Amino acid sequence: MDYHQLSCEKVLEAALSRAADEQCPPKLAEALRYSVFPGGARVRPQLCLAVAGANLGSDPMLASSAGAAIELLHCASLVHDDLPCFDNADERRGKQSVHTRFDERIAILTGDALIVSAFDTLAWAGSMAKFPERLASVTTIVARSVGAPLGIAAGQAWESEPVVDVSLYHKSKTGALFIAASAAGAASAGADPAPWQLLGEKIGEAYQVADDIKDATGDRDALGKPVNVDQRLNRPSAVREFGLKGAADYLKRLLEEGLDSIPPCPGRDGLQDLVREQARRFIPKDGDRQAA
Amino acid sequence: MDYHQLSCEKVLEAALSRAADEQCPPKLAEALRYSVFPGGARVRPQLCLAVAGANLGSDPMLASSAGAAIELLHCASLVHDDLPCFDNADERRGKQSVHTRFDERIAILTGDALIVSAFDTLAWAGSMAKFPERLASVTTIVARSVGAPLGIAAGQAWESEPVVDVSLYHKSKTGALFIAASAAGAASAGADPAPWQLLGEKIGEAYQVADDIKDATGDRDALGKPVNVDQRLNRPSAVREFGLKGAADYLKRLLEEGLDSIPPCPGRDGLQDLVREQARRFIPKDGDRQAA
Repeated sequence: MDYHQLSCEKVLEAALSRAADEQCPPKLAEALRYSVFPGGARVRPQLCLAVAGANLGSDPMLASSAGAAIELLHCASLVHDDLPCFDNADERRGKQSVHTRFDERIAILTGDALIVSAFDTLAWAGSMAKFPERLASVTTIVARSVGAPLGIAAGQAWESEPVVDVSLYHKSKTGALFIAASAAGAASAGADPAPWQLLGEKIGEAYQVADDIKDATGDRDALGKPVNVDQRLNRPSAVREFGLKGAADYLKRLLEEGLDSIPPCPGRDGLQDLVREQARRFIPKDGDRQAA
Repeated sequence: MDYHQLSCEKVLEAALSRAADEQCPPKLAEALRYSVFPGGARVRPQLCLAVAGANLGSDPMLASSAGAAIELLHCASLVHDDLPCFDNADERRGKQSVHTRFDERIAILTGDALIVSAFDTLAWAGSMAKFPERLASVTTIVARSVGAPLGIAAGQAWESEPVVDVSLYHKSKTGALFIAASAAGAASAGADPAPWQLLGEKIGEAYQVADDIKDATGDRDALGKPVNVDQRLNRPSAVREFGLKGAADYLKRLLEEGLDSIPPCPGRDGLQDLVREQARRFIPKDGDRQAA
């Protein structure tokens, strides 16, 4: 996993070197780097790279870039989600949110430029990839996960609707990038992405439930942002739906379903081990004890 | 030009049909369509298609989609530029701006989803194009024109800096999409995009000067948005720099320089005629009289 993680960080570094160079307006350049480094757990790129590596025919350049693109889109969504008109969050990853540190204008433009940088990164990889003909399908998978009708922008837009389908809301708001990570990893390796979507869907939902538990139990350090936001904003949450114990059990079941869903491939056993190892990191302490 | 315009509208219609379908949150779906239809003059896609058509080896699918992608990015930038923290504009293209008609949250998400839709459109075309190997270079050209360091997001970010280079500001804020339109048109036809940038640069600057003249002369109908914004926001403007007559002369010179810059290609004469015809539409009446 270290090699993969390193290569994804290198692609992110290259993307930011292109975007936030000396020609870039200084505040925007600073905000772009601030939004991406130091990162969170980079769980989505790790999933993408792990799926790519579990298949034969992997194209490391394309896989790393797909992972990095998804991470850039994740960072963009955090910057926009924190804005005053959405979550109005002052903190993110244990430091000031972008609009708090800079201002609202720079935050909007930072999110926009990060979205663009994600697709620039895919095109950059496509021009150097071993299998450039895979660029279109990888780009399609990534784009659909972040736009409308079923990507994270659409997920966020459900919060403006009077009637919300909770499953669709979570699937698009948090699950979409995990589904893309798994499917794009497979597509970058020349495998059919369709059967890989379920792994991303289950891990994405597990990650959301873990986040709901951290929010509800007030584990501010683990969350790196203000807690009890779901209740304050009256947002759907697994804890509010099932209780704390029920949410922890549900989280455990989601992980098992994810592991079972992994399609036959040369690296299936190794991938299951990796997913289990990674899950240990994002399961909150309370949830871990109850789900153990 | 009619064939070209039709095909670009069809690609835009297809893009919106994918993004704003029945699974999309209703307000976001409505705002996406509202931002793109009915459109403005679609001058950027027309330039892209005209350049592609002037070269041998055109790939109509890729060229139409590059033009449509650039138009989607243009629409996205208008939605975000109108936001309260930027221009705070109530009107656009003679109707309410998106955040006025819907709200700020939907406006931010609409811009985000339109950016994504642009790249989804390129990938969609790439999977069906006659020459899919051109997808990476076309995508790179389009992405660089809209992100950082030299695209429209960067151009907008210069407004947050204490010291602004006016030429760089205009080149990135308004010129970038015209440069991309010309270069992507060439790249979609398999031609070297580099010598085509100057045409886009000159037309883009001419278009900006025309806009400055409309803003200064208060031709609200021609502009389709509030006038005298440059002076109110103390923004750089050719009219403020050169006076009205000077700006009109400058506009005429830019167009001639653009026409002269067109590289040798089979359709050079026809392309010059098209550019002249198109310019007649966007030159403001006052500027036209003075520049005639």
